[in-house]
Amino acid sequence: MSQIYFTPGPAQLYPSFDKHLQNFVSQQLGSISHRSAQYRSLHQYTVEQVRALLNVPESHQILFLGSASEAWERIVFSCVAMESFHLVNGSFSTKFADYSHALNKYAHKLEKPMGEGFSASEIVVPEYAELIAVTHNETSSGVQMPVEEIHRLKAKHPDRFMAVDMVSSAPYPALDYAMIENAFFSVQKAFGLPAGLGVWIVSEKCLEKAQEIKKTYSIGAHNDLPTLWKNALNHETPATPNVMGIYLLGQIAAEMNAIGVDTIRQQTEQKAAILYDFIEKTPGFSAFVKEKPFQSQTVVVADTERPSSEVIKALKTKGMVVGSGYGKFKEQQIRIANFPATSLEQVEQLTAGLAGI
Amino acid sequence: MSQIYFTPGPAQLYPSFDKHLQNFVSQQLGSISHRSAQYRSLHQYTVEQVRALLNVPESHQILFLGSASEAWERIVFSCVAMESFHLVNGSFSTKFADYSHALNKYAHKLEKPMGEGFSASEIVVPEYAELIAVTHNETSSGVQMPVEEIHRLKAKHPDRFMAVDMVSSAPYPALDYAMIENAFFSVQKAFGLPAGLGVWIVSEKCLEKAQEIKKTYSIGAHNDLPTLWKNALNHETPATPNVMGIYLLGQIAAEMNAIGVDTIRQQTEQKAAILYDFIEKTPGFSAFVKEKPFQSQTVVVADTERPSSEVIKALKTKGMVVGSGYGKFKEQQIRIANFPATSLEQVEQLTAGLAGI
Repeated sequence: MSQIYFTPGPAQLYPSFDKHLQNFVSQQLGSISHRSAQYRSLHQYTVEQVRALLNVPESHQILFLGSASEAWERIVFSCVAMESFHLVNGSFSTKFADYSHALNKYAHKLEKPMGEGFSASEIVVPEYAELIAVTHNETSSGVQMPVEEIHRLKAKHPDRFMAVDMVSSAPYPALDYAMIENAFFSVQKAFGLPAGLGVWIVSEKCLEKAQEIKKTYSIGAHNDLPTLWKNALNHETPATPNVMGIYLLGQIAAEMNAIGVDTIRQQTEQKAAILYDFIEKTPGFSAFVKEKPFQSQTVVVADTERPSSEVIKALKTKGMVVGSGYGKFKEQQIRIANFPATSLEQVEQLTAGLAGI
Repeated sequence: MSQIYFTPGPAQLYPSFDKHLQNFVSQQLGSISHRSAQYRSLHQYTVEQVRALLNVPESHQILFLGSASEAWERIVFSCVAMESFHLVNGSFSTKFADYSHALNKYAHKLEKPMGEGFSASEIVVPEYAELIAVTHNETSSGVQMPVEEIHRLKAKHPDRFMAVDMVSSAPYPALDYAMIENAFFSVQKAFGLPAGLGVWIVSEKCLEKAQEIKKTYSIGAHNDLPTLWKNALNHETPATPNVMGIYLLGQIAAEMNAIGVDTIRQQTEQKAAILYDFIEKTPGFSAFVKEKPFQSQTVVVADTERPSSEVIKALKTKGMVVGSGYGKFKEQQIRIANFPATSLEQVEQLTAGLAGI
């Protein structure tokens, strides 16, 4: 039985995924050299489509990695000589701080319990922190940091570098890249593609900093920023990349551009409103994130009265899959992805399905 | 016009690739959670098939990375506190040494010109080198290091760790993993799959060494060996992996197991003999690698009298693609991949095509 996946990544594939995959196969793109003009043209097309979709200025490169987790490491190597600062309120923001620590940097943390969010006004940035790491969307808890708060935080600290984890929300957040030096996502979330490709949007200021740090410390060897950047200028990557993922991302981004990113963002909010309205009004469900501005628009987390595994199992018999709670919340929460690949009608089908359980 | 790719990677896709890709799509495997029992079963299957194919003992884990280049970094982080030693005779062995240097290790090199190979008897390993990095198959020059020479080198230095680059030759080399602590390959070469997945075969001795090194130095953050190993015990990966690549690798490895790895190795040698015979006997072509034991069985490099771009262009009109020379040899060589995805008949079609140019 075919299922609709409302899981927070890997997730439902984009409706036109099959068509683009067939085109990839019929054009034999799996066999072309990653040093050929044909590849460079494919690479350039994807970068241009992502650049247009997210309104990324020419001061920033759009780079391809094996996963978004790899971006954590590359950002620390490139932007942090000694100290980073992390807003931590879930598993993925914790891991970013862990990466910094593992690279022998001092990782300052401002911690809140899962389910709570951060406002710019309450944040004191440590004096010597070179990088402020924020999570636009905590996939583990369904907490978002509103884009305005991210911009406000940067405005207060123009001399620090920002890194925005938008793994499970891009292209939803309308970041102003004049203020954001690093942002990153992976394609198996809101772009509706199979996993295996991370995207790192990075300012030339980071390139300069990486070159400066390199005089004293290692900035890594694989996919180090200067090498990535140099190759990107030629529409290439240092190592053989996930050509299929890069091709498919270009096709999906082009479709999103045809729809218009504003429309996609409005549709996301409209579907999220339906989901939050449902879990707030329906007995047996309640929103895990209590404060409205912090409620994620792309990963909706609901506390369930019954063990969530029962809810998930019952829903599967109706042809729909939602995620379980993360970590210690596994049995008491469900996580519902609200990505562009699932339509308004499918979201209504989901709420109807959940209502009948 | 559909082409047969004899390029050294990305390369011709395995004949059954389309079928397995369709199964991946129809089972919605692009949407399953990488923390689900369904994923763990898929992961385990691939590991078991690769383990059987390459005869990897239980002392070694089979780990998945974004690319084989990433393995260079992870091996240095895990096995080298201070000094590594590299047999360098081409672009890829040079890069492995560069990675070690970039991670602030001392990378000793024994260098030979491109096209020449190494014998165990001539190699003096520096006293404090912890790792000996050898390239079974230099994709850039078509030089192989015979497996017996690799084993002989290790036998002389039982206390050093070995790292064998078999990126463009696995499953051809019959390595004895009782003697080899690290080996790695990527799937877009002899496994006939799209790029985007590296495989690292690694001994538990490296895990112990990584844990020891970690007391003093960083061993990296992303895909560090202890975390990869811990996840592998549960048939998982630390970050969301290239699930499609892992699935497809399992299917192709299973098909190769059905054929039998000995048969595949014999077929490889049979096809290589035809290719070398052709380039040695045909005016306008000659073998770049002069000494027979060092002639790669999987990437055959020929000097061309005419500019190789002319040869490549003429061959394309006949529906076949070979690679150009690497780097400074671009215009004077062709590189012909001899992977399992291309049949004896196709190799004969290639030599007939080249003969008529």
